[in-house]
Amino acid sequence: MSGTRFPLPPGAVIGVLGGGQLGRMTALAAARLGFDVAILTPGANDPASRVAARTIVAPYDDPAALAELVAIADVVTFEFENVPASVVERLIGLGVEVAPGPRALATAQDRVVEKSFFRDNGVPTVDFVAIAAAADIAPALGRLGAPALLKTRREGYDGKGQAWVKSAAEADEAWARIGAAPAILEARAPFVRELSVIAARGRDGSIAAYPLAENRHENGVLRLSIAPAEVSTATAGQARAIAATVLEKLDYVGVLGVELFELVDGRLLVNEFAPRVHNSGHWTLDACEVDQFEQHVRAVAGWPLGPTEPFAAVEMQNLLGEEANDWARFAAEPNARIWLYGKAEAAPGRKMGHVNRLKPFKR
Amino acid sequence: MSGTRFPLPPGAVIGVLGGGQLGRMTALAAARLGFDVAILTPGANDPASRVAARTIVAPYDDPAALAELVAIADVVTFEFENVPASVVERLIGLGVEVAPGPRALATAQDRVVEKSFFRDNGVPTVDFVAIAAAADIAPALGRLGAPALLKTRREGYDGKGQAWVKSAAEADEAWARIGAAPAILEARAPFVRELSVIAARGRDGSIAAYPLAENRHENGVLRLSIAPAEVSTATAGQARAIAATVLEKLDYVGVLGVELFELVDGRLLVNEFAPRVHNSGHWTLDACEVDQFEQHVRAVAGWPLGPTEPFAAVEMQNLLGEEANDWARFAAEPNARIWLYGKAEAAPGRKMGHVNRLKPFKR
Repeated sequence: MSGTRFPLPPGAVIGVLGGGQLGRMTALAAARLGFDVAILTPGANDPASRVAARTIVAPYDDPAALAELVAIADVVTFEFENVPASVVERLIGLGVEVAPGPRALATAQDRVVEKSFFRDNGVPTVDFVAIAAAADIAPALGRLGAPALLKTRREGYDGKGQAWVKSAAEADEAWARIGAAPAILEARAPFVRELSVIAARGRDGSIAAYPLAENRHENGVLRLSIAPAEVSTATAGQARAIAATVLEKLDYVGVLGVELFELVDGRLLVNEFAPRVHNSGHWTLDACEVDQFEQHVRAVAGWPLGPTEPFAAVEMQNLLGEEANDWARFAAEPNARIWLYGKAEAAPGRKMGHVNRLKPFKR
Repeated sequence: MSGTRFPLPPGAVIGVLGGGQLGRMTALAAARLGFDVAILTPGANDPASRVAARTIVAPYDDPAALAELVAIADVVTFEFENVPASVVERLIGLGVEVAPGPRALATAQDRVVEKSFFRDNGVPTVDFVAIAAAADIAPALGRLGAPALLKTRREGYDGKGQAWVKSAAEADEAWARIGAAPAILEARAPFVRELSVIAARGRDGSIAAYPLAENRHENGVLRLSIAPAEVSTATAGQARAIAATVLEKLDYVGVLGVELFELVDGRLLVNEFAPRVHNSGHWTLDACEVDQFEQHVRAVAGWPLGPTEPFAAVEMQNLLGEEANDWARFAAEPNARIWLYGKAEAAPGRKMGHVNRLKPFKR
């Protein structure tokens, strides 16, 4: 409620918008610290609801549900970056603190706003042009060079809502494929590797970053994260500096994930950031004293940030769709830890769980 | 339900009798593996209920509640060893598997039965005599030597229901102090240290034991566990052998805690065992890939047991009563991890949480 005093004491209630696996693992971390969690989700029987003290099942913009959440929650966060920014503003209007704040959410929700934010703050990113109509594509392609990647400004994740444009002749087809929605055209980044950095900012302005992860995607979906990634000191430093800039310029409270392209000379370009805990940070669950989920809870609750130094190297493998049916095999691997999200239906490509394969550092 | 096939797949429901912190941490571990948890507890708003998918609030022997639990749970376990054995038998009669089984529970619930079980199976324990009336104490004291410890046969924990008897003249007073209930008189063990071993047995009969912990009590309540305890190879081997005997002779499935007295020559006497996860095993939460709670869930669900080798040394400190109010200080310690149980009232001596202080093994 309004006038919340931080740090929140154990027993306080953390509200979470969204009921997926990120909310579930956040709720587990919150419980370790003695907090109760209240989930607001449109889905009945969602993964997070089944480990939360309270669940409100309603659309995110349901006024009664938002009022109910504000009545019970001491602070609200989200596990899903497509929560309407208007919902966050309404919550704040009802007198509850929301972290990260609406500016972070709004920035992350619109790819043109996001990339403009990077550019305006000296954060290196790919060249881009805003696209309002199919006719904008050809001139933009002329400026950025072909091929370029057309993406919707809003929504779209795991490779959805994207189309490569190899020539001006393909403009109309690409425009149709992404649904003829407001878009961004991005220059192709000549990257050699995809990396990410998970970092947090506390209510006191302190910042903590985990070591980088190297990420391998398949069909636009994260398949493997290898952490800590083998990177040069300069690359690691640049990643930390990028994360710090984003966190500070957005007056951010909580954990974020920054997706990075590594160029052949080790320099980094930012692809995008997620204003939440991030799939490429799941390796921290079994390799750090304080994992990204507890770190997020600590930040949101106004607690001190925890250490980010890992005690093991990890290969994190997402279990997509029916791969999770092999749980018995993963559970029997001696240095693997399996996390399953409690989803009933293993739709193809759906993130059902993950496995962290650990290589403890030499003793 | 009857005819349950093991291993249980993710999505199965694990029923837990009891709603305290042991149930809470068991529920968190079960969630990691994709299970749902259903708690049966007489207490409203218990620590475990707030992280469980379902809670049935009712007395343990409520027939409708037991039927409801059997209808939803694929297997049932307990976090509290004073659940009436008749309840477990009723559950089994209703067709659900209960692990550990009723024999383990009945053995642990009666100190005379328990110590007789040790003696009959060659497990070294203190000398003892069953006491049915105050008049039995003087002759028993003559046999065991003074002082000796009078304990109720049933219930009593954390030093409750116990009285030292220094001479036959104190027999009546001691008998009154323990509530004039059926009792056991135990010879004093000339121990130099209190140790414990946490071990598990899977449905396939496999056994896994964690390294020993050294335990320090205050006023009968566990204050500190130091793990792995510095013990000789022989002592460690004897502890594992004791745990294996208890597990096998009781055809046990799940985790147990065995409390041990170490004599000056390193030999061990068993004090008692707890047919459940154990406070002196909380150090495993932050120092083992698979902690005692996940190990228990794995065993009960018929999954393979996990590794028990720690990657860090730990000093576990219980937070009793108002000590938990210092959560902000513990949260700021760089190598400490804090666990809070979500209990609203910090009654004196009440277990509110614990802190694991980690010393990572040298890399």
